[in-house]
Amino acid sequence: MLRVPFAFHPMSRSFSSSAIANSIRAKVMLYSQYGQPDQVLRCVSHELPSSPKGKEVLLQTIACPINPSDINQIQGVYPSRPELKVQYGQSEPVAVGGNEGLFKVLAVGDQVSGLKEGDWVIPSNVNFGTWRSHVLSEESALMKMEKTISANQAATIAVNPSSAYQMLTLFEELKPGDWFIQNGGNSQVGRSAIQIGKKLGLNSISIVRNRDNLKELVDELTGLGATKVITEEENASKEFGKTIAEWTNGKPIKLALNCVGGDNCTNMVRKLGQDGTLVTYGGMSMKPVTIPTTMFIFKNITAKGFWVSANIKRIPGSRENTIKAVQKMMEDGDLVDVKMYENPVSADASEDQVYQAFQKALANSNKGKQLVVFS
Amino acid sequence: MLRVPFAFHPMSRSFSSSAIANSIRAKVMLYSQYGQPDQVLRCVSHELPSSPKGKEVLLQTIACPINPSDINQIQGVYPSRPELKVQYGQSEPVAVGGNEGLFKVLAVGDQVSGLKEGDWVIPSNVNFGTWRSHVLSEESALMKMEKTISANQAATIAVNPSSAYQMLTLFEELKPGDWFIQNGGNSQVGRSAIQIGKKLGLNSISIVRNRDNLKELVDELTGLGATKVITEEENASKEFGKTIAEWTNGKPIKLALNCVGGDNCTNMVRKLGQDGTLVTYGGMSMKPVTIPTTMFIFKNITAKGFWVSANIKRIPGSRENTIKAVQKMMEDGDLVDVKMYENPVSADASEDQVYQAFQKALANSNKGKQLVVFS
Repeated sequence: MLRVPFAFHPMSRSFSSSAIANSIRAKVMLYSQYGQPDQVLRCVSHELPSSPKGKEVLLQTIACPINPSDINQIQGVYPSRPELKVQYGQSEPVAVGGNEGLFKVLAVGDQVSGLKEGDWVIPSNVNFGTWRSHVLSEESALMKMEKTISANQAATIAVNPSSAYQMLTLFEELKPGDWFIQNGGNSQVGRSAIQIGKKLGLNSISIVRNRDNLKELVDELTGLGATKVITEEENASKEFGKTIAEWTNGKPIKLALNCVGGDNCTNMVRKLGQDGTLVTYGGMSMKPVTIPTTMFIFKNITAKGFWVSANIKRIPGSRENTIKAVQKMMEDGDLVDVKMYENPVSADASEDQVYQAFQKALANSNKGKQLVVFS
Repeated sequence: MLRVPFAFHPMSRSFSSSAIANSIRAKVMLYSQYGQPDQVLRCVSHELPSSPKGKEVLLQTIACPINPSDINQIQGVYPSRPELKVQYGQSEPVAVGGNEGLFKVLAVGDQVSGLKEGDWVIPSNVNFGTWRSHVLSEESALMKMEKTISANQAATIAVNPSSAYQMLTLFEELKPGDWFIQNGGNSQVGRSAIQIGKKLGLNSISIVRNRDNLKELVDELTGLGATKVITEEENASKEFGKTIAEWTNGKPIKLALNCVGGDNCTNMVRKLGQDGTLVTYGGMSMKPVTIPTTMFIFKNITAKGFWVSANIKRIPGSRENTIKAVQKMMEDGDLVDVKMYENPVSADASEDQVYQAFQKALANSNKGKQLVVFS
């Protein structure tokens, strides 16, 4: 590689985050075939003009999360996938990983009306390819985020808390005092549902796996606003139905949120009241959703699925409305920061450094919510 | 028992079906505790005035079927049950068996405006207690049936064909050329769905169990209007999906009707297209409804239940509208007579004879549609 003096190196920190240099050396995490992320992802650089034209907006990534669906997408087992196309100087068709993230505006074209340098934005839609240091985007593909919440909150608002909010508001007309039940109560969506539910005046029962430090988890979730937290074993016990009936004072549980499947879900469905709805948004047990026939015929329950990506397309405006509502709850302190693990990297770092930051985040993604944070 | 001369015996045939005698000796099949029908059912007599008053209508039963739900009700495993109350001269609370049947009007009270002697009626609601020779009913509890269809058709119109009609019309807006799939294709509801579907311009795929005389059954169902009839083994085969895609020319299957459950149902759900609906109305395999998580999340299928009894109450007027539509199809020859097995008995027969007719019908109820027919 040709060595160039520091001042002219396009990856130099002092130039890349301003519009002084003619171009910015953007790093993108891309893949040309489906497989395990540690095997198929690579980091490449490409030049971006530092002065965007027309409706273009030049962005630098602030933070982007590793969501399970991002991994599934790269594995090729996710129905929604970005188009693989020849881009970024590659000879074969490639796509960029990641769907969610927060960006700051570095510069705008002369036809951009709603954004200015320094603004925060998130992608308006999925398959944006957020795992990168910089990107040139049309203004229309971006949604402005007010800086009233933390960067990490803004970077992760579109998937987990938005899913929780939509599931609690779109399937049943829940009124204050109504009950819902969920499994995976300590998942990111589960924690959001507890807090959003509390804000909406709802009572919740969250099912979690038994563990050594169960009391700690129960206290934590109760602290977030969970009305009741129960174990899978309690959920499985026939007698426990009576306890729940005492808690709810006989009021029917109207909604159940399922991200587990299998027996856990079956036992949860049994807690639903007449005409209740089961919403499935995940299947962590890798087992199908199994529902007794009598629940359908005599209890008239409805079982539906939820996929935030599809929902955005199905209901125009739903993403914006949801994000505004969730953001308000975050501003008001009703939705506390999720515990996140930051994997820092400079926006001017080398391809290898960016690659390593993402691989570290990917490797730890089962240990907690991972973010790659650019500085 | 005191012997009375023939002419004065209230059970005498010559008097019971007219209003000359002061009273009619009605036989009712009743039970005072839940259990197997052959153990808990008994036949008792009671006197009915042969001249009804006010809004009362005196009826003689023409025919009543043995439906599986009637048996489940007597077994105590059916959520909708008639109230057990002290009646018919019994010292303990009792209920009368049966929910469906056709009656003829013997006489009407002076405030009855819509019915006259000789008219046919069916109960407007469930838990009428149809297993009896005669009954005195309020006019408001009855629905008049025009004599444009056979007595057996009229006696069995409210449950099986009405269920098929409602399931094909209330869950998805199916248009001519659309496809639905069902298991239990040779059940009474299945045969009705095939014919009603054909009349509505729908294409159908019916799943049946393999058997020695499969071709005979396939020919029969195809003769009724089934577009395709497949076996459970074909339904279970992954490759068969391609065959179905060829049949439908890639058109998504919008609706699946399930009365089986278990793997049969799971494999059927896999044939549903994007946004399709699974309706469960029975569980003959005694296994639950099992649906892959991905079908909910990525195919956005909805799983619901159907229970004709509950549906009648939920949608006012639905029973009348449904019966009129089905009756029209029967009149037009679009819905042919189901094969039924008649168990004849005289309306003036002894308690024991009536009891025997019902017990014979009950004992044979797994061999085909059984009717007790009064003459």
